[in-house]
Amino acid sequence: MEFRIQKKNFLRGLAMVQTIVERRSTIPILSNTLLETDRKGITLTATDLETAIRGHFPASVTLEGKVSVSARKLFEIVRELPESEIHLTKRENHWITLSCQKSVFNIAGINPEEFPPLPKFTEEDFRPFPIRELREMIERTVFAASTEESRYNLNGVFFKELNIDGQPTIRMVATDGHRLSLIDKTGLQFSNLEKGVIIPKKGLLEIKRLIGDGGQREEEQEDLVYLSLSENNFVAKNRGIVVLSRLIEGEFPDYDSVIPKENDKKITLSRDRFTACLKRVSIMASEKGEGLVFQIQNGSMAVSSSTQDFGDAKEEIDVEYTGEDLAVGFNGRYLLDALAVMETEEVVFELKDSATAGLLRPAGEKGHLCLVMPMKL
Amino acid sequence: MEFRIQKKNFLRGLAMVQTIVERRSTIPILSNTLLETDRKGITLTATDLETAIRGHFPASVTLEGKVSVSARKLFEIVRELPESEIHLTKRENHWITLSCQKSVFNIAGINPEEFPPLPKFTEEDFRPFPIRELREMIERTVFAASTEESRYNLNGVFFKELNIDGQPTIRMVATDGHRLSLIDKTGLQFSNLEKGVIIPKKGLLEIKRLIGDGGQREEEQEDLVYLSLSENNFVAKNRGIVVLSRLIEGEFPDYDSVIPKENDKKITLSRDRFTACLKRVSIMASEKGEGLVFQIQNGSMAVSSSTQDFGDAKEEIDVEYTGEDLAVGFNGRYLLDALAVMETEEVVFELKDSATAGLLRPAGEKGHLCLVMPMKL
Repeated sequence: MEFRIQKKNFLRGLAMVQTIVERRSTIPILSNTLLETDRKGITLTATDLETAIRGHFPASVTLEGKVSVSARKLFEIVRELPESEIHLTKRENHWITLSCQKSVFNIAGINPEEFPPLPKFTEEDFRPFPIRELREMIERTVFAASTEESRYNLNGVFFKELNIDGQPTIRMVATDGHRLSLIDKTGLQFSNLEKGVIIPKKGLLEIKRLIGDGGQREEEQEDLVYLSLSENNFVAKNRGIVVLSRLIEGEFPDYDSVIPKENDKKITLSRDRFTACLKRVSIMASEKGEGLVFQIQNGSMAVSSSTQDFGDAKEEIDVEYTGEDLAVGFNGRYLLDALAVMETEEVVFELKDSATAGLLRPAGEKGHLCLVMPMKL
Repeated sequence: MEFRIQKKNFLRGLAMVQTIVERRSTIPILSNTLLETDRKGITLTATDLETAIRGHFPASVTLEGKVSVSARKLFEIVRELPESEIHLTKRENHWITLSCQKSVFNIAGINPEEFPPLPKFTEEDFRPFPIRELREMIERTVFAASTEESRYNLNGVFFKELNIDGQPTIRMVATDGHRLSLIDKTGLQFSNLEKGVIIPKKGLLEIKRLIGDGGQREEEQEDLVYLSLSENNFVAKNRGIVVLSRLIEGEFPDYDSVIPKENDKKITLSRDRFTACLKRVSIMASEKGEGLVFQIQNGSMAVSSSTQDFGDAKEEIDVEYTGEDLAVGFNGRYLLDALAVMETEEVVFELKDSATAGLLRPAGEKGHLCLVMPMKL
């Protein structure tokens, strides 16, 4: 194997695989990236056996072949090289020699045949999906997924197709048992998703990286990403790069029965004002529970906290409310996480009593809600 | 005690004390800041018993007094408050109540009489010193001080007055036993520094924070900081804020005898080029020793490294050199640290043989040198 590649193209490929490879894997080949050539360039692959990424980058190939070397070391080396052409050749015993201007690196590799095969996927299975909607759905749900290994069926986002009032709808839901976030997008379709699948958090975050944060380019809003389900994997393709995420096997809980339908005490609040208040009062919440007390009465909501070591805090917000008095406890961090992914100027905080979950919705925007379980006062 | 203070002034004071207070101190009062009032405002003090800081900030005081509360909690609270006036009053049992617009915080305190007294210093002892020179001397030496607790006499920078060719000179030297950095500034004077003192690293970093990084204001280059030695403390004062640093008791080693005087093999290098080469080759140095091999021969210097797990690296730099061949080992990290504090376009690398320390000097600039001990090849 022998090829020449511009530093910037190689660096882009190596940056792509860094978040997939495991730093301290017990299986050495999983720290490596697989490098394969074809006539047009090189393909880089990395996998942790659950999430995989694969991308093609232009290079001038003089001898085809494949090698596998440490993804981190190769990235560190290429990052420090001058903006110039890099020459890479395969040596004996799976070593490679990389040279660039006056630098020469000999890098130990592992037999590329040991590299685990990726799940198969066919180009025909891909369906287009709007990037902007996918990004928004991931951002608004993934934070609520559980990170506890024992609750493996909650370690991802439930992705499902359904029909709401005759409209085809795509739904994403995530919960860690203490809070939940749900978003619906009507007018979008997929196939074979009526039962729903659970996509792991890491895979979704890789897909979000794949489609970008949308910050830079206005025109990107019309772009499409290509999605498919194959061999128990969720697959996303964008601009020649493919991310594969192995679905979580297990039942997603019956989230719908958890969402209260009769929270009749509705309080409309400025999202910024509510966020600032929660940040302040949370400082005095105990570090474990982060419990805040919400007292609602005619025209005002008081938020308070106390911690044995440092003291207490209380803040009032004027609100339009005329119902009966209510006191209820919630985790301040969960409410802040939910407020952070909403974009409307105002939010609606929907409550019932001290034993019922609270709901937070962006005011005037259908299809998104965050639920927070109540805490004992 | 009762006063009103603008958020921005209070925040500036609380930010000032954050790096001094110990996060997990076994002595609770050391996590606190002492807050004292006078007719013009408030004085904030923090200490870890080795480094202390004290500053005055404008406030409208209606009742004088003093309190001591958690520096971290108070900072977190004030940081989240709106840009508005803060009202603070002392309550019973050393508690304070802080309010701002619609937020009220009750914060537990500790009897301020328990706060350790600061070392005494008198205004008359302060001597002016140019800020720019002090900043440069700290930056160019402090990185070489030891962080090993057992080598307490190397945990700081040696600060000394001497006479070089009839010129009064101020010197700073730091070493960790493996490398050393020395800087002389002629034409500057101090008093009672002939024997020299050892100022701890933490104290010097606080003084550097006190005088700023000089990035923003051109006119600051003429500013003066006021320094003194009193009660075994090095004291620096700038714009109403005082930093006190308890001197390290102990002998600073005889550094002068360690600096080789006969390194006749002199190689002039572009600082950027040398830095880039060392960064690249260091990637393949073993993570413990970071040893690089330097081979010098007619017209070229080769830098190489190797690690059992990942492979090896080698890079050549064209240099003007016509002496005998030489191979010597040095720690790449130490050379990079030294190059990072130099500012000239070129540096001179001075060597003798494989058993002699190497010297690095900014080309054409007197008074600064970095020494690196050789490593076995």
